[in-house]
Amino acid sequence: MARTSTLEIIPLGGLGEFGMNMMVYRIGRDCLLVDTGMMFPGAEHLGVDVVIPNMDFLSECGTIHGIVLTHGHEDHIGALPYVLARHDVPVWCSRYTGHLVKARLKEHSGNQAAIRSFPEENEALTIGPFTVETVPVAHSIPQACMLAIHTELGTVVHTADFKLDPSPPGGEGTDLRRLSELGDRGVLALLSDSTNAMVPGTTPGELSVRPALDSLIGQADRRVLVASFASNIQRIRQLTELASRHGRKIALVGSSLISHTDIARSLGLLSFPAGSRMMPADLMNLPPEKALLVVTGSQGEPMSALSRIAVHNHKDVSIEEGDLLIHSARVIPGNEKSISRLFNHLLRRGARLVTGRDAAVHVSGHPAQEELKLIQQLLRPRFFIPIHGEYGQLSAHAALAAEMGIPHERIVLAESGDLIALDGTTCQVVDRVPAGQVFIDAALGKVDLSVLKDRRKIAGDGIVVAVISLDRDSGEVRKPTEFVSRGFLAEDEQDGIMDLAAAVVRDTISEATHEERIDEALLRAKLLSDLKRFFRKKTQRRPMIIPVLVEF
Amino acid sequence: MARTSTLEIIPLGGLGEFGMNMMVYRIGRDCLLVDTGMMFPGAEHLGVDVVIPNMDFLSECGTIHGIVLTHGHEDHIGALPYVLARHDVPVWCSRYTGHLVKARLKEHSGNQAAIRSFPEENEALTIGPFTVETVPVAHSIPQACMLAIHTELGTVVHTADFKLDPSPPGGEGTDLRRLSELGDRGVLALLSDSTNAMVPGTTPGELSVRPALDSLIGQADRRVLVASFASNIQRIRQLTELASRHGRKIALVGSSLISHTDIARSLGLLSFPAGSRMMPADLMNLPPEKALLVVTGSQGEPMSALSRIAVHNHKDVSIEEGDLLIHSARVIPGNEKSISRLFNHLLRRGARLVTGRDAAVHVSGHPAQEELKLIQQLLRPRFFIPIHGEYGQLSAHAALAAEMGIPHERIVLAESGDLIALDGTTCQVVDRVPAGQVFIDAALGKVDLSVLKDRRKIAGDGIVVAVISLDRDSGEVRKPTEFVSRGFLAEDEQDGIMDLAAAVVRDTISEATHEERIDEALLRAKLLSDLKRFFRKKTQRRPMIIPVLVEF
Repeated sequence: MARTSTLEIIPLGGLGEFGMNMMVYRIGRDCLLVDTGMMFPGAEHLGVDVVIPNMDFLSECGTIHGIVLTHGHEDHIGALPYVLARHDVPVWCSRYTGHLVKARLKEHSGNQAAIRSFPEENEALTIGPFTVETVPVAHSIPQACMLAIHTELGTVVHTADFKLDPSPPGGEGTDLRRLSELGDRGVLALLSDSTNAMVPGTTPGELSVRPALDSLIGQADRRVLVASFASNIQRIRQLTELASRHGRKIALVGSSLISHTDIARSLGLLSFPAGSRMMPADLMNLPPEKALLVVTGSQGEPMSALSRIAVHNHKDVSIEEGDLLIHSARVIPGNEKSISRLFNHLLRRGARLVTGRDAAVHVSGHPAQEELKLIQQLLRPRFFIPIHGEYGQLSAHAALAAEMGIPHERIVLAESGDLIALDGTTCQVVDRVPAGQVFIDAALGKVDLSVLKDRRKIAGDGIVVAVISLDRDSGEVRKPTEFVSRGFLAEDEQDGIMDLAAAVVRDTISEATHEERIDEALLRAKLLSDLKRFFRKKTQRRPMIIPVLVEF
Repeated sequence: MARTSTLEIIPLGGLGEFGMNMMVYRIGRDCLLVDTGMMFPGAEHLGVDVVIPNMDFLSECGTIHGIVLTHGHEDHIGALPYVLARHDVPVWCSRYTGHLVKARLKEHSGNQAAIRSFPEENEALTIGPFTVETVPVAHSIPQACMLAIHTELGTVVHTADFKLDPSPPGGEGTDLRRLSELGDRGVLALLSDSTNAMVPGTTPGELSVRPALDSLIGQADRRVLVASFASNIQRIRQLTELASRHGRKIALVGSSLISHTDIARSLGLLSFPAGSRMMPADLMNLPPEKALLVVTGSQGEPMSALSRIAVHNHKDVSIEEGDLLIHSARVIPGNEKSISRLFNHLLRRGARLVTGRDAAVHVSGHPAQEELKLIQQLLRPRFFIPIHGEYGQLSAHAALAAEMGIPHERIVLAESGDLIALDGTTCQVVDRVPAGQVFIDAALGKVDLSVLKDRRKIAGDGIVVAVISLDRDSGEVRKPTEFVSRGFLAEDEQDGIMDLAAAVVRDTISEATHEERIDEALLRAKLLSDLKRFFRKKTQRRPMIIPVLVEF
């Protein structure tokens, strides 16, 4: 086929930061969108619930023929309601992912009809000029896949998240045979998961956690609680089997755990033998050595099941002296402190604690360096683009590719917002498109940056509103200025200070020039500067100050 | 000697949380205070600069005869100005620590005359009924010591922070011989550092970082920057030697680094051979392979030297492609994200990065499990109280003591605020005293909890002040209500909404009952509830709302 065109690859998120993975593939004006992820806000994003990529580019990029979701983790699907609210296009994904996003769209009153399942194995999925093939992969959520995107320029492999687990429980492994075939037929470009690109060696398979869990559960003489990610169905399957093996009943605690397991059961991916599962409240009536609870809240999220259990504030479950808590999850960077707070509460109540530091009770869902090289070896791509990671991970992954013999000019270390143009012979960043973080709070509300800045300012030293009553005719202060402050001084600290501040207002106004008196903006600026100086001198604090002039 | 009394030990901070170490020893009404530490606030403590222990107990505990500071780290000395402001008592410490606290007291206009140096080796330091002996220890700051507090009931050993480094550069090692003697004479109670009580094995000595640093600096072909803690003079001494060895000049960047090294030089603990040290700006003019810079900011603190260098915003120093940054410091829990952000900036500028994960470029200043056991073995205390750590560390340390054969009833797992009473035969928590965190912002200002709560509330959804003008006679609204909001909606999002809100105010007031009209509190409550409902419905946000009524 004649190569008449250029393939453009535009990451809108996920390169340069973890989370909010979103990638546009474009030929001419025809686009395919892969994944629509969100991320959780940092402590500095006051009052923000989720962070999604800037999507302005989607409105100007041409025709979006469809969206493909590689798997159901939030950092790959969480922004879908926001995308669909502006772009009514079909979405293809696995059945497992479909259940998750439909539930999410329902909450947002989004268009659930947009969601379609991937076609059967032998049917082609054609989206505009792209023929999208899904290759099953092992990951920490069911029905994850890589994409082989066939175009007139050649085939691009987009790994998304994956690991190489040769013996996954339930048989959901990575299809190495098909990857090898794709490699034989020629791969134009490989976009590969950089999450663990700084981790040497190989990521152990999911079954590797079994011996430690088996021995811990087998030896426990009281209740066992296991904190795990709700979407890790393989882990929950193993825990179900181990509970039975050691004569324990199992209960699931936490709403996300229940919705994930319900989906898995409806798809035949998980089952609880008759009588093996109980409701949490009922399980608590069994002898402690007969009970195993899987709980959400491994990251110390304040409202989660485990956090509430840890402070004896859960309606069904409580923790007692000698109970065992197994932390079968990773510590997501940024959550170290809340997790450590959680652990302290549990220890104070006499619980025993086993974490990934003490025993092999968790494995990563992402490939480490040896596996990343193996994938490159199988696929032998002409061009290499590391995706999913901060700059450190992306550049470590680029270094691995160089080690594998890919020439430097064929490795593209891009960041979100870069427009990568790729023809048969070159692959490079040629342009920038709008990109960045968009802050969202409850129910589809975008939080303006100016609003966030104000929140940060007020959060630092509080706010003081001065309600100043002026005589319309004389321009003098008619009654004492009323100060309303919040987050600034405690009530008993304010007394004398607010009286003095009222005197400052009176002086400022009586000393105002004629110009200032007739130009409210000038007068306001003068009041602002005098009050700022006064409060800083009196209190060493710099509250946000807002003078309100009321004339009458 | 007849045992007529009880020794009380009251930790006011540092047990149950890291930082703000402060301990009261009391016999009858006579007190000794050991360490006066602070901690840095978490992200949830909006606008707070430092956190210190609640010190109410110090005002009611009896006579404080003096304060002893074990070493100069902030979590042991940072609250001293706040203590001395309320209690004018003498303070004993090493000469190094003395320089640090005098500088701090100068900033706070505190009483520098209170600071005294420890007496010479053969002189006794008697503070009320306590005879305090200092035992030199190895730690990551010069002139640290353990205390052997001799009382009529027996000797209590308070380790504070220490490690067992048999070959410390500069010779500042732990005096094991003296500890062994103390053990032979009998130790009533041991209070020991739990920081690394969950870390198996032994903490390597300071010299163990030398081979890795030597090889990295030796092989570097461009500038080398080393991020290290300012107080780690041994580390700076090693870097000075290695710079010379590899033909590099050294510069120190960051004000805390300069003040610490100035003190160390004045005490003869550190020297720079003639011509070996340069000013940062001058060093940047040398060929890159001739330069080594020690920089502050290992924790990614936004205003630190390294953070400014990383974003090309430092007046003297810039980082260039191929420069090497060695992170020769630990990652303090809670700082993971800011450090990772820092690293990404450096990598993006083409710097190479070596951290403690890649090579042995940092060692802890605290003893691991084997050393903790060794100290117990040397001292053979009758009672054991783990100090310095969160609940997890304290309980791990208690478990080690049990392993060493100390009976359970002689191990006291206490928390800050517990009053531990100790006579010759028993040691137990018998009471609670006021304890907890006190939040401080700039210049000795205590931040009230109510103020922090308001800041958090405003930080979430912003604030709306409604200035409502009422006619004094009719009680009706005289002019449209003026709304002032911050952190709530962007300006262009407010238009229609504020007009509608003004209509809500008008309706609420015209529908008010006679009672509400004559009772301003009632009217305000009604306005508040109507406006809350209105804004929540319109915007899904819950700003703090403050109605201000202006009558005329």
